[in-house]
Amino acid sequence: MNHRMVWRTLARTLLIEAALMVLPLCIALYHGESWRGFVCTIVLLVAAFFLLQGFKPRNSDIYAKEGFLIVALSWITLSAFGALPFVIDGAIPSYIDAFFETVSGFTTTGATILTDVEAVGYGLLFWRSFMHWIGGMGVLVFMLAVLPLAEERSMHIMRAEVPGPVVGKLVPRVRNSAMILYVIYLVLTIAEIVFLLCGGMPLFDAAVHAFGTAGTGGFSSRNLSVGYYNSAYIDVVIGTFMILFGVNFNLYFFLLLRRFSDVGKNEELRWYLGIIGFSVITIAVCILPTYGTFPHALRYAYFQVASIITTTGYSTANFDLWPEYARSLLVFIMFIGACAGSTGGGIKVSRVIIIAKSSVNEIRRMLNPRSVNLVKVDGNTVNSGTIHGTLIFVLLYFIILLLSVLVVSLDDLDFTTSVTGVIACFSNIGPGLSMVGPMGNFSMFSPFSKVLLSFVMLLGRLEIFPILTLFSPAAWRRN
Amino acid sequence: MNHRMVWRTLARTLLIEAALMVLPLCIALYHGESWRGFVCTIVLLVAAFFLLQGFKPRNSDIYAKEGFLIVALSWITLSAFGALPFVIDGAIPSYIDAFFETVSGFTTTGATILTDVEAVGYGLLFWRSFMHWIGGMGVLVFMLAVLPLAEERSMHIMRAEVPGPVVGKLVPRVRNSAMILYVIYLVLTIAEIVFLLCGGMPLFDAAVHAFGTAGTGGFSSRNLSVGYYNSAYIDVVIGTFMILFGVNFNLYFFLLLRRFSDVGKNEELRWYLGIIGFSVITIAVCILPTYGTFPHALRYAYFQVASIITTTGYSTANFDLWPEYARSLLVFIMFIGACAGSTGGGIKVSRVIIIAKSSVNEIRRMLNPRSVNLVKVDGNTVNSGTIHGTLIFVLLYFIILLLSVLVVSLDDLDFTTSVTGVIACFSNIGPGLSMVGPMGNFSMFSPFSKVLLSFVMLLGRLEIFPILTLFSPAAWRRN
Repeated sequence: MNHRMVWRTLARTLLIEAALMVLPLCIALYHGESWRGFVCTIVLLVAAFFLLQGFKPRNSDIYAKEGFLIVALSWITLSAFGALPFVIDGAIPSYIDAFFETVSGFTTTGATILTDVEAVGYGLLFWRSFMHWIGGMGVLVFMLAVLPLAEERSMHIMRAEVPGPVVGKLVPRVRNSAMILYVIYLVLTIAEIVFLLCGGMPLFDAAVHAFGTAGTGGFSSRNLSVGYYNSAYIDVVIGTFMILFGVNFNLYFFLLLRRFSDVGKNEELRWYLGIIGFSVITIAVCILPTYGTFPHALRYAYFQVASIITTTGYSTANFDLWPEYARSLLVFIMFIGACAGSTGGGIKVSRVIIIAKSSVNEIRRMLNPRSVNLVKVDGNTVNSGTIHGTLIFVLLYFIILLLSVLVVSLDDLDFTTSVTGVIACFSNIGPGLSMVGPMGNFSMFSPFSKVLLSFVMLLGRLEIFPILTLFSPAAWRRN
Repeated sequence: MNHRMVWRTLARTLLIEAALMVLPLCIALYHGESWRGFVCTIVLLVAAFFLLQGFKPRNSDIYAKEGFLIVALSWITLSAFGALPFVIDGAIPSYIDAFFETVSGFTTTGATILTDVEAVGYGLLFWRSFMHWIGGMGVLVFMLAVLPLAEERSMHIMRAEVPGPVVGKLVPRVRNSAMILYVIYLVLTIAEIVFLLCGGMPLFDAAVHAFGTAGTGGFSSRNLSVGYYNSAYIDVVIGTFMILFGVNFNLYFFLLLRRFSDVGKNEELRWYLGIIGFSVITIAVCILPTYGTFPHALRYAYFQVASIITTTGYSTANFDLWPEYARSLLVFIMFIGACAGSTGGGIKVSRVIIIAKSSVNEIRRMLNPRSVNLVKVDGNTVNSGTIHGTLIFVLLYFIILLLSVLVVSLDDLDFTTSVTGVIACFSNIGPGLSMVGPMGNFSMFSPFSKVLLSFVMLLGRLEIFPILTLFSPAAWRRN
């Protein structure tokens, strides 16, 4: 393990965080709010940068395990510093609460411990949502885009941070791939801001909700979330952009290159849209008695399904009060999540496809032991290592979920709250059902559970393995 | 597919059911109860036997797919006929309810739709619990023990009916293995009856509870389940026998052969006892405030943990009212279940071991891609096919669970009832939490959900694949 190289890369991400924090600082100054929190944190970040920068690596080799460690440590450290402005300015007095809120921001979960969001200042609200935007595409992918790093090394880092069973480069050079991803991300975000402004939303709110949508985060500047605006136009705009940000970004690149057939034959996209279509229609039918007319029911079903499957977590209705079928289906799609290579969380549609196809093959093999069946996605055979890794990943997902529910249940909240609270954190969604429903929040959990849930969010966003690496003695051993 | 051979084997199992039904018929006659239900059913079974016996197979080949189909069809047909006495004698007027109760009996689930068990006659109560005993070790294993069938053919049937990732024969001949299993099973059952009689339990109750324990079923002759007797002695006896029946029966055979080291080095047994020990102690601490003294708390925790992990489902306390940690831990061990090759259900401890070890290996492989790691259980390397099959099995377990919850949620019962009701059926336990808790029952589900849950119980008992075979076009195709 090349520890010095780990510390050095970590130093860079801290510097980037300091730079990014200038933006909310300006907004705080513009609105005449306290600047102390941001300035103190920026100073501390720069100090930490110089401290860690002092480690001179003997060589700059980075392998898979260094990649995992860098990503895991960066995300924890960024959250640890990112929480400071909330505490220093007194918006969130408890550091554990602020840490939870910050991890929830970076991991694009959007679960909050705030009971009154509208009481928080502009600067901090902006920072809270801006973290969604940074965390959505990835801090380290951003670093790779702006700071030069050798080719092979970057790939190990990118693989550890970008979600999905297989991470492909768009172009031969990792740095260019990272840049392209961020440009597409930025353009889509600006497009959404423009659409929201056209709907009469103030600029600040439009930025906050565009960040929340782009990162599939879900923090709002309103206590009633998107429901505050009570506008069909805004519901459709945000709903549609959520679905767009849940798509694999590689497909947008293919669109730019006019490789339409690559987009058309993409199985993950078809499954993703199919699941959304099925869910929207059946939920609309299910909630019809509540909303009177079908178009009305469709509007709420569309928004909520888009919000949950993309793991964003905005709400326009209190779906906790919907009939049990609608609630269960929303929990079901919480597990599935968005497409690989998007900003969404969850298990990811592509993994669901691999599991479904492997299961069918296994049944065929049991009926006819001599048959040879390959798993094919988009016409290509998936290699057995990827299949095995995918199966283990999803099993670990369920195991970590069950163990976390067990630990959280020590708080003695009801079964639905414990279970859906953990799922909502693990799949980076935000709201669950019961006490953590769309009208609830996470403030009643014990400090211990809040720390645990913070790690559960990180496990979800970084897809388990980087965080587990932290607990592996092998990762800490010197070479 | 050799369909004629399938029908012929099915015919034999129906004849065995007719023979087994003579026992409850005698009990009904002895107590002066209606004999009509049993006699009519026996006549129908014998008629069906002669009808199916008419198919003369051209050859007697049986392969894996025939084995699956025989097992799946036998269990469904046995349940379809087994339900008749309840309907004919009027104890359960609705056929769907009776079918649910019968499937629950054979699959050793013990979930009931009866609101007043004590109002049912002796003959039917005996039949209900006797089904547990037959289903626990397996109807077809019984058939293999009593009726001659060619060696290779028997193995395909045994493999399809006996739970666990790997089915081993105890002795070279399948028939002798089946006989040994049934003799051990019978001796342990009689031992339990004797112990219960010593505790002052009436003979009928002792037989009913011994059958329920042996098959890890959970049907009781009392509305309050084992809690009715309110005796520490009976709690300890039944609790301990539940744990014994949750152990792989091969180990008892090893004990008879004095191969103590084979028992000692058995990892599954150690994990199983370890999980029980951990659960009993932490739950006892958790429920201490409810029960006052530690020995008292320990007694209830011991019984309930033994009952749930072995998937029996008896209760001595209303654990639905226990603190959330105790409830969650019970749900957690509902998933795990008992040992492979026992009469218990669930995922099975041996599969949990394989998954845990494969996950650790996968993390090692990610950190060090060139490392070679094998999964070893009891000192033997598990082959990759078994590992792959185990991973798929457990994933299918979770997928079927989630899909079933979705369908059951159409009944609009609360989240906890839907989720734990499905788990309790799938793992063949019986009670869950909330409305299906130890003081509740399954009567409020819609007929549609009752049929679905019946299939979920069969999927659980037969370990998914045989039942899925029914839906595979390949299984129905002629050769």
